[in-house]
Amino acid sequence: MSLLVIGTLAYDTVETASDQRDNALGGSAMYFSVASALYTCPALVGVVGQDFREEDMELMRARGVDCSGVEQVEGKTFRWGGRYEPDWNTRHTTFTELNVLEHFDPKVPAASRDAKFVFLANAAPAVQARALDQVNAPTFVMADTMNLWIDVALDDLKTLIRRVDGLILNDEEARMLTGENNLIRAAQQVMDMGPRFVIVKKGEHGAFLMGENVHFALPAYPVDTVVDPTGAGDCFAGGFMGAVAEAGSMEPEVLRRAMVHGTITASFCVQGFSVEDIGSRSRAEIDARYNELLSIVTV
Amino acid sequence: MSLLVIGTLAYDTVETASDQRDNALGGSAMYFSVASALYTCPALVGVVGQDFREEDMELMRARGVDCSGVEQVEGKTFRWGGRYEPDWNTRHTTFTELNVLEHFDPKVPAASRDAKFVFLANAAPAVQARALDQVNAPTFVMADTMNLWIDVALDDLKTLIRRVDGLILNDEEARMLTGENNLIRAAQQVMDMGPRFVIVKKGEHGAFLMGENVHFALPAYPVDTVVDPTGAGDCFAGGFMGAVAEAGSMEPEVLRRAMVHGTITASFCVQGFSVEDIGSRSRAEIDARYNELLSIVTV
Repeated sequence: MSLLVIGTLAYDTVETASDQRDNALGGSAMYFSVASALYTCPALVGVVGQDFREEDMELMRARGVDCSGVEQVEGKTFRWGGRYEPDWNTRHTTFTELNVLEHFDPKVPAASRDAKFVFLANAAPAVQARALDQVNAPTFVMADTMNLWIDVALDDLKTLIRRVDGLILNDEEARMLTGENNLIRAAQQVMDMGPRFVIVKKGEHGAFLMGENVHFALPAYPVDTVVDPTGAGDCFAGGFMGAVAEAGSMEPEVLRRAMVHGTITASFCVQGFSVEDIGSRSRAEIDARYNELLSIVTV
Repeated sequence: MSLLVIGTLAYDTVETASDQRDNALGGSAMYFSVASALYTCPALVGVVGQDFREEDMELMRARGVDCSGVEQVEGKTFRWGGRYEPDWNTRHTTFTELNVLEHFDPKVPAASRDAKFVFLANAAPAVQARALDQVNAPTFVMADTMNLWIDVALDDLKTLIRRVDGLILNDEEARMLTGENNLIRAAQQVMDMGPRFVIVKKGEHGAFLMGENVHFALPAYPVDTVVDPTGAGDCFAGGFMGAVAEAGSMEPEVLRRAMVHGTITASFCVQGFSVEDIGSRSRAEIDARYNELLSIVTV
């Protein structure tokens, strides 16, 4: 069923212990789109500058992403720079240039206003809310966020959280949002803020889902060579929402399988810079690794 | 089938963010014994001083631990002090008094020399080796270790590792022993040192098992109130080896189920100081939580 995503497109400059990329295609909604396109045809809403490369738009279109909601405006595309420590657990933001993102006012195309599945990828909560305002009667709305918004836009974020069905965040963000160190209690407290579901991502340690009628936990797929973790969380969300939209249901068994799909799309993501790996994978490769992970976690 | 454990008995002084205990019953082999006694009757080999409380010996006996290999000698019982940071991830050793442990020369009673399942709980690798020398023809030998021995007795440890079927260690120790940051590759490198199986424990993030014909990963049981993590790794090993000895087999499906049992015994352990919680649990309570965890991890 129809999947809509609103969020950022970016050019990222990423440095790891052994390699680097300048101006690589990035952004929360871009990663989400490319991952979810393995399951359905997502409609992408975002903004880019006049320097956005036609080949990058073509890459997304070729993967099945509907880019008609990507607005190209005067100015430069949002740029982000990051450097990872050798242990991958510590990431330093080296620079942030908002550029066209500074005045981003999301416009959901008429054709996407009836979308049933909506993902509000990481962006300012007020922007996420303005996008959500334009969707008529979504069945399942999930939002992502980041430590920056918990820090500088907490009221906006709490208002948004009350409007969504599910929130996806990482362990550090869950602790920061709730002030609770124990992740199980933190997840429960997030649900007390409104959403019926919460997904806590723990990077190499996997993820868990808590909801009104479901509790599911899963280790990460064991990747033995990480190239670049950027976008892994967005690809997780893309695999999750893609699988949910494909199934067209939020039954507990669908959500459990979707958690495995998110884990798999994230595992391909970290094997390359940008979407160099996940953007070249077939659904058959996803499904093969899905079955491999099942064989590892099944008692 | 017969299970033998060699290791330490101690009196621990533990301080957490909200509570503390002085001279609480502790030690690697004590925790292991109490956990494994939920599955089989383990024989315990260790040393205590003349200050060892008869009520503590009685506690272990009442749980079904064969304490005939616990030698009581002149001097004081080994003492250890530790303090946990509020996030539980950082532990400071506040003091170590080896006392009777300094000259510990393990003596395996005649009745236990035919044990088929042997666990070399954390102790100096040379002590572990001397204990293993006294066992006739074990079917499955598993060893634990700690960062101290990797640091000060690496040659002894590597010699021991070549003689065991399995090694159990935590993430930090796996990285330290191999110099490899990626845990999957670290586990493979440990297997290259000799053992057919390796278990890597990751605390609140679960554990995984790699072996010649098995690969299994599991998140931790979601404990929402941790009281004291001391001994959790030893209780994990106790639940694992207890379940393996109970089944009398090292088939992959036995090892997978044993990993779940280890996860469950560890989860009860952290709910109390010393063995205050795990030492009061029935097998029915273990099995109920086992089934609960299965419901959380099953896709």
